[in-house]
Amino acid sequence: MDVAIPRDLDPQVRAETLAREKAYSQDLQRGGEWAHIWRIAGQYSNISIFDVTDNERLHEILWNLPLFPFMTMEITPLAQHPSDIAVET
Amino acid sequence: MDVAIPRDLDPQVRAETLAREKAYSQDLQRGGEWAHIWRIAGQYSNISIFDVTDNERLHEILWNLPLFPFMTMEITPLAQHPSDIAVET
Amino acid sequence: MDVAIPRDLDPQVRAETLAREKAYSQDLQRGGEWAHIWRIAGQYSNISIFDVTDNERLHEILWNLPLFPFMTMEITPLAQHPSDIAVET
Amino acid sequence: MDVAIPRDLDPQVRAETLAREKAYSQDLQRGGEWAHIWRIAGQYSNISIFDVTDNERLHEILWNLPLFPFMTMEITPLAQHPSDIAVET
Amino acid sequence: MDVAIPRDLDPQVRAETLAREKAYSQDLQRGGEWAHIWRIAGQYSNISIFDVTDNERLHEILWNLPLFPFMTMEITPLAQHPSDIAVET
Amino acid sequence: MDVAIPRDLDPQVRAETLAREKAYSQDLQRGGEWAHIWRIAGQYSNISIFDVTDNERLHEILWNLPLFPFMTMEITPLAQHPSDIAVET
Amino acid sequence: MDVAIPRDLDPQVRAETLAREKAYSQDLQRGGEWAHIWRIAGQYSNISIFDVTDNERLHEILWNLPLFPFMTMEITPLAQHPSDIAVET
Amino acid sequence: MDVAIPRDLDPQVRAETLAREKAYSQDLQRGGEWAHIWRIAGQYSNISIFDVTDNERLHEILWNLPLFPFMTMEITPLAQHPSDIAVET
Amino acid sequence: MDVAIPRDLDPQVRAETLAREKAYSQDLQRGGEWAHIWRIAGQYSNISIFDVTDNERLHEILWNLPLFPFMTMEITPLAQHPSDIAVET
Amino acid sequence: MDVAIPRDLDPQVRAETLAREKAYSQDLQRGGEWAHIWRIAGQYSNISIFDVTDNERLHEILWNLPLFPFMTMEITPLAQHPSDIAVET
Repeated sequence: MDVAIPRDLDPQVRAETLAREKAYSQDLQRGGEWAHIWRIAGQYSNISIFDVTDNERLHEILWNLPLFPFMTMEITPLAQHPSDIAVET
Repeated sequence: MDVAIPRDLDPQVRAETLAREKAYSQDLQRGGEWAHIWRIAGQYSNISIFDVTDNERLHEILWNLPLFPFMTMEITPLAQHPSDIAVET
Repeated sequence: MDVAIPRDLDPQVRAETLAREKAYSQDLQRGGEWAHIWRIAGQYSNISIFDVTDNERLHEILWNLPLFPFMTMEITPLAQHPSDIAVET
Repeated sequence: MDVAIPRDLDPQVRAETLAREKAYSQDLQRGGEWAHIWRIAGQYSNISIFDVTDNERLHEILWNLPLFPFMTMEITPLAQHPSDIAVET
Repeated sequence: MDVAIPRDLDPQVRAETLAREKAYSQDLQRGGEWAHIWRIAGQYSNISIFDVTDNERLHEILWNLPLFPFMTMEITPLAQHPSDIAVET
Repeated sequence: MDVAIPRDLDPQVRAETLAREKAYSQDLQRGGEWAHIWRIAGQYSNISIFDVTDNERLHEILWNLPLFPFMTMEITPLAQHPSDIAVET
Repeated sequence: MDVAIPRDLDPQVRAETLAREKAYSQDLQRGGEWAHIWRIAGQYSNISIFDVTDNERLHEILWNLPLFPFMTMEITPLAQHPSDIAVET
Repeated sequence: MDVAIPRDLDPQVRAETLAREKAYSQDLQRGGEWAHIWRIAGQYSNISIFDVTDNERLHEILWNLPLFPFMTMEITPLAQHPSDIAVET
Repeated sequence: MDVAIPRDLDPQVRAETLAREKAYSQDLQRGGEWAHIWRIAGQYSNISIFDVTDNERLHEILWNLPLFPFMTMEITPLAQHPSDIAVET
Repeated sequence: MDVAIPRDLDPQVRAETLAREKAYSQDLQRGGEWAHIWRIAGQYSNISIFDVTDNERLHEILWNLPLFPFMTMEITPLAQHPSDIAVET
């Protein structure tokens, strides 16, 4: 997810949107659906892992991101890796 | 990491290399440096997260992958995200 | 899914693999998981729609395609479109 | 079809255009020419399948989309796939 | 359409395939379905215009090109242009 | 040739420019230098074939297109194809 | 790092930002963390080498560049090369 | 070198900048450092060959182009070709 | 023009082909049609300027290059630049 | 510089070529023309900085790399950066 907030966005709208984005993300992290989030060093971008029941739910989460209108994102469907030690046993 | 094993590789060499790759990955997972591994659905590829002290160690780990000669990979340096709930407090 | 069968593949292996691919695809079509398949005009490629429970099942289906070793594919996660008339009511 | 509505579009024009787009799409779906439409998860984009008599008709449909000025699209000509179970006798 | 004939193809097979390709193309040109063909200067490639009833016929023509296994091609669906003087009146 | 007219262009300037573009194109079509023009289905783009004496003339024609400031184009130098039936005899 | 300062930025803000950028860069150069900086000939871009303890520090440095909002950058993790004469002995 | 002058640039500033660009280029051509310049047919772009003592001088020349802020360019370092007849003897 | 000679080409065939390529290029340079040739530093590639009557002649020259089967090339149609001092007067 | 040594290269030729490459690089490093070399983490690639008198010398150095036939490389002409502390005073 890359973020590009237009330079002419009202500073108050900007601050409020960023605050809502953070709260939104942390609620989903606490609920377990937003499994991981990392900052890409030197970029206004993140890499996130979602653990959701289906594509409908994934779309719902992403579409309602407060920063969605300013984001471009790329989605890669993941599955369990046979070498993952969590799979063993 | 995308894997492309040549079709003319000896089947026994192939099987042995895959077994060594799995053991190598799982040792590093148990040691905590290979933090996550996921299969990309429908691809002979994975997305992995490493937690290492520096680039020297990262290079050492990747260069010694038994499948390294058959892999192409792309590396993105990650940092902690300010919205990560693990950062809070 | 693009298919590129090497020119030096044994003709009998080739014929047999193609027959297995067709049977495999048609079984999944009858079962409803392989919802649609179209040929891209002028290409040895197809566009397919899968209706599966999760990414694990999707990966299992694709990984076991008889032609998998000769394919390159790109996967786009889809959801229901709000304008789809099947959604109405 | 990717949609990018400019941020400075009048909200009423925007709402009205979206309503016309939905009605336009659903009329063509009921008529059978717009055979399928899916949302790409996490994108303001869709993948659609059209079943039309020729390129002239396809162009007419797309050119008159209410959102056409804000869309970029890519068109792939499709044909029946020999493995499609609908083809079997 | 780009052509890349493998260097190790038997010279006689090569010559025969090229002859069949030329005859095949010229038959379709005479029949009116292969409306135009130009060589791209400095490339083993051509740009062709087809005038066919539907995508099924287009696919049939291309799939049966004697050089098809050695070609990569890109297809752009065309329609009449409103400024074309042939449309006037 | 792809056309992207800015949304804030004065509607009258826009209408007038489009009319001049059409007249300009049709004059050159009648003169034989603009040999073919097709609409790319679903795009505000065309594919055109020019038959001119040299690159100087080609540049002069394109540079003076009324829509030139709003166009991006790609030019491929073409030559006669040895399989073109017009070449035979 | 490519720099693209918007044409409508206030000239005084622009001058001040450039001065702060230079001071910021030179402080880090003197501190040893910004090891090298070169101008790419003919571009408003530079190639820089950083020598930092970890990705957190790298991100902190880049995120606080006064020109950060006007930059796009690409980061390549580097390690010591076995042929580097500094490694010998 | 591709040129993209913004549509809202003051016409007088535009005309003056173009005149300065031409004079600047011709001075360097007469001095021998700007060895060749060609227009790319149908583009607001040129291909130029520079014959300068080093990259510092090349950068100085390009950075001071009156149209530099509106240009994107790509630089390829060239050397004498062993088949160049000027090298013979 | 990029050159990629296969590693398994017979050394004598290779040497002979390179000699024929050089003679062919120099003949055309002496005749004035191959106006310039430069080596791209660090690449087995060249940038050449041709001055020919039309695309047919250009294609004939390129198609008959002894190294043509091992080359990939990109052709850009050039015209005189209005700032070229050779145009003045 | 990316290195891709073919799998079927004779192991002794391979070992010898690697040894010559290392010696060649270190000689130039000691001579000051090969100013820096870094390994790209996780890749069989390096990023190098050369400090040479002109493009002819750069080409000579690169063309004679023992691994040159197995390398693909990209060259960026660099100049001194005005913020480089080495420039100050």
